[in-house]
Formats: sequence, structure tokens, C-alpha cells
Amino acid sequence: MQSISELQQIINKAIANSQYPSTPKELYEPINYIMDLGGKRMRPVLLLMAFDLFSNDLEKAINPALAIEVFHNFTLMHDDFMDNAPLRRNMPTVHNKWSNSAAILSGDVMLIEAYKLIMQVEPSLLPEILNIFNETAVGVCEGQQIDMNFEKLDHVEIVEYINMIRLKTAVLLGGALKIGARIGNSSIEAAKQLYNFGVNVGIAFQLQDDILDVYGDPEKFGKQVGGDIISNKKTFMLIKAKELANGEIEKSLTKWLNVVHNPQEKVYEVTKIYDQLNVRQLAENEMASYAKKALKCMEELQVDECKKETLKSFAESLLVREH
Amino acid sequence: MQSISELQQIINKAIANSQYPSTPKELYEPINYIMDLGGKRMRPVLLLMAFDLFSNDLEKAINPALAIEVFHNFTLMHDDFMDNAPLRRNMPTVHNKWSNSAAILSGDVMLIEAYKLIMQVEPSLLPEILNIFNETAVGVCEGQQIDMNFEKLDHVEIVEYINMIRLKTAVLLGGALKIGARIGNSSIEAAKQLYNFGVNVGIAFQLQDDILDVYGDPEKFGKQVGGDIISNKKTFMLIKAKELANGEIEKSLTKWLNVVHNPQEKVYEVTKIYDQLNVRQLAENEMASYAKKALKCMEELQVDECKKETLKSFAESLLVREH
Repeated sequence: MQSISELQQIINKAIANSQYPSTPKELYEPINYIMDLGGKRMRPVLLLMAFDLFSNDLEKAINPALAIEVFHNFTLMHDDFMDNAPLRRNMPTVHNKWSNSAAILSGDVMLIEAYKLIMQVEPSLLPEILNIFNETAVGVCEGQQIDMNFEKLDHVEIVEYINMIRLKTAVLLGGALKIGARIGNSSIEAAKQLYNFGVNVGIAFQLQDDILDVYGDPEKFGKQVGGDIISNKKTFMLIKAKELANGEIEKSLTKWLNVVHNPQEKVYEVTKIYDQLNVRQLAENEMASYAKKALKCMEELQVDECKKETLKSFAESLLVREH
Repeated sequence: MQSISELQQIINKAIANSQYPSTPKELYEPINYIMDLGGKRMRPVLLLMAFDLFSNDLEKAINPALAIEVFHNFTLMHDDFMDNAPLRRNMPTVHNKWSNSAAILSGDVMLIEAYKLIMQVEPSLLPEILNIFNETAVGVCEGQQIDMNFEKLDHVEIVEYINMIRLKTAVLLGGALKIGARIGNSSIEAAKQLYNFGVNVGIAFQLQDDILDVYGDPEKFGKQVGGDIISNKKTFMLIKAKELANGEIEKSLTKWLNVVHNPQEKVYEVTKIYDQLNVRQLAENEMASYAKKALKCMEELQVDECKKETLKSFAESLLVREH
């Protein structure tokens, strides 16, 4: 199996070789722009790795892998608009650099382009691959909607939160792995195990993101540490803290949640409350439980142990990270 | 062949039977809302009619026909947001009734749902049908982008305008007919003729829309007569008028184009200029030339003359209309 960085290079090369029409440029420039912002290319790499567990002709998996990356960037383009985010990877977001309409319409074209790419599979597999892709795509949209709904709710349960991140983040990792496996002619059972592996890794990955948002090293994290605290985002950390807090701590938490100005002190004080309630440890425990579930799916998978190790170590690298 | 109203009923019944999940309701309610706003169901009816030219088992064409209608309504949902339109069919638009995010995200799900429906065809036809659908869908997005670009341009040529309406409006009619024909196992040649028929009908249809926007009977037209004049929309009428006007008429036209307040007088005066320059007749001539091209495609088509008549008369009903 090729190394992770080799697989990333394959994806980056495929992105660089993607040819979109030159006009209308307002439609196609934002697509090249967001695709060129970079990133770990985690989702298409997972697809290639799953394919490689069962088949050697990696060329066959490149277009479907690209489809997953184009789809992911379509969701980023639309979500950034919906979330009113000014920056992505320290660069202006599309709606910010061009216009709201550009973000909407270029995103729409990206979704269609993703379908053009995902359909580049053996005709006999096409209906099945499309079904997986459709189900995954709808799941991601539902996750984004539930996440936006949370902003207006006073109370969210941990189980609801896990369901939201499962849809918004994790099913796409699972879907990528499942598609890769099936294109490589895996058994249905193996594809299902890889899907479950991906979903559990994805949930653990998002929990790690929540932890890093509070406890990450500002120099390495790449975005503002404490951003979730400032915006009262209902992450695992905050939901758990609200669940556990009582007495003086509860009063203090409620007070700080209502603070809009003075963000620095808010981050400092809410983090102190998290420390008092031990929510970092609880989040790490939760994360570890999903990582463990993921590994169990992997153990059940009957493929070359050596190839399995590469996939396992990639998943571990996603979880033990500082940014 | 079943009558047009019977085919419309088949589509309306299929829409009424569409089952979306109940949650998250913010995502699915707008889909049911826009699909229930009604309309002529022109595009799916064209698909069914094209299918019926070659095959009898209409049941096979219903999901793909529904796909075209869902896709069309997805474009309306996103376009209404981009165009900042408050009303559609005298009802609040989705971004107006719910929120911008609802219009974006529900629209995204509709595009995925359209793919779920379009793929309900014989597996052997699936790649071809997806290719037609993808090409059509990208064309419609390009048309919307070009239309938005026109707003910022001083000068647009008639040929550029025709290209824009070809993409924004006409290719979807052509695509619907082509898909219907191929699902019905037509020859490639016949599908191509029907596509060209649809594109020419579509261009004629949009030109008729431009004429009705100025000269329609307010009671029958269903939207504000003169809306295009008030917003200086670069329709065939305005582009032609600018091309022909000189001397006093040119001065007067320029003056009225700069009038923002006093919309009623603006509509009256610009219409007077159109009358002086005979642009209504020129638009009708242009429309007639596309209708003629459409009929020529139809004449070349080798199918049951009786069935052909139904399709021809439906096309005529789209062109000789008051709303």
C-alpha cells in the first residue's frame, strides 16, 4: 500500500488536473479557489485506502475519491455562507471574496460535478455506489440543519449531539470508505465494517476537534482557540458542563454564557469551569470509546493485516493530533 | 396517448405521494411547500410525452419525470434567494417564509433527491441518463450565472441573450424530452431531434414570457406586468430597443432607464418607446422563428403522427398563452 502522503499527492494531482470551463468565470473560479485551499484530503485518502485493501488498480478509484473531496468542499462553501464565516484556512470564504450568489451557485455546480465524478465506476456497481453517495449526502445536509437548529435551543442532550456530529461529519468518512471498498469489489460485509469504522472514527475525530478548540495550542491549531466558547457553541464540552454544573459553578457558567463582550476573559473563565468539572477528561473518554469501537470494526475485517495497519495508523493520526 | 391534463394529474399525484422524512422539519417542510405551489408541470409532462412516443409502460417514466420537476423547483428555490424575490405564485418564497439557510439547504437536498429519482431507470441506461441530466443541470446553473452577470453589464447582444435563455430555460425542456425518449428506448437520433425540438420551444417560450411581461393582461398574467421594465431587465425587448433607438427616442429611453421612482410612468413610457420601435413585432418574429425550427425538428421525427400531434399541440399551447 502506498503511504498516506503518496495518496494525498495522488488526490492533489487529480485536483490540479481538474478542468472546468473558463466561462462563466464567476461560476468556476470559486470552485478552483476552494479546491486549491488544501487540507489533509482525509476523505478521498480514506476512499483510496479502502479500495487498496481489496484491489490494486488504484486508477479506478481516483475519480470517485475526487467526487468525495468535491462534495466535501461543496458543503464547506454552502456552510460557510450559512454560518457567516469570514475565513477558511486563513483565506476569505467564497461568499466573502465573491458574493453570496457565487457561493450558492458555484456550490450547486460542485454538487453536480461530484455526481459526474462518482459515476465513473463499473456500470454494474453504479446503482449501489449512487445509493451510498445519495444517502451520505442527505445525511450531511441533515447534520448541518440539526447543527443550526441547536443554536436556537436552550437544551441539547449528549445523545442528540453525537447524532448531529455523526451526520454532519462522520457519515462522509464512512461513506468514503464504503464506496472505496465496494469499487474494489469487497464483500458487502467488509464494506459495512469499514463504514462503521469510518463513522466511529469520524465521531471521535469531531470530539477531538471540540477538545482542541478549547485546549489546543494556539500556534498549532490554525484557528482561534476558544472560538466555540465565545459563540456558546453546543459542543460535547459545553453540553457536559451544563449537565454536571450545580450550585456556584452553575451560576458562574450561566453568567459567562451571557457575556458577549470581553471574549478573552470568557474563554479563560469557561475553561476554568471545564477544568473544575473535568469535562476534558470526559470528552477524552468519550472519544476513546468511539476510537475503540472503530478498532473493533477493524479487527473483524478480514484483509491483509499489513494493509490494515496502514489504515489503522492513518485513523490514529487523525485522532492524536494538535490541529 | 393520454391527455395533457391526465399527464399533469399523474405528476401531481406522484408529487403528493412523495414521502420525505418528518425531521429535521426545517429541511423538509420547504420542499413540500415549493412542490405544492403548483404550476403547469410542463417539464415532467414533456418527459412523459416523449416517453409515450416510443413505449407504453408509462409507470417507468414517472420517477424520472418527477426528478425533472424536483430539479426545476430546486433551481427556483435557489434563484429566488439569489434574485431576492419575495413572492412565487403569489406566495412567499422559501427564503422569505423560512430563512436564507433554509432555502440553501433544502435546495441542496432537493438536488440530491432529484438524483435519487433520475436514477430509477433501467441499469443499462443509467450512465447515459445521468450524463444527460448532469449536462442539463450544469447548463441551467451557467444560464443563471450569465443572467446575473447581465445585470452588471451596460451592453448585451441579442445573440448573448438567446444563449442565456437557451441555458437557463430551454436546455431543461430539451433534456426532459431527451431523457423521456431514451427511457422509452428511442433511437439516439430521435432523442436528439426531440432535444432540439425542446430547446427551440424553450427559447420561444421565454421570448413569449418577455412579451407577456410588457403586453400581458394584468388579470391573466399572474405577476406584475412591467416588472422587467421597472428593473431594467435586459430582455429581448430592451436589448432590441437599445439597438434600434436613436435621436430623441434614444435620449428618452436612456432617461427612463435611469428612473427608479415613479415605476408606473416608467412602464407606460418605456412601453410607448417599444411601440414606436416596433419591438413587440420583432420579438414575435424571433419567437416565431424558434417555433418554426421546433416544428421542423418535429417533422423529421419518425413516430406515430397522431402521438406527434399531441406533443405539437402541447408545445403550441405553451407558446400561444396569456400567462
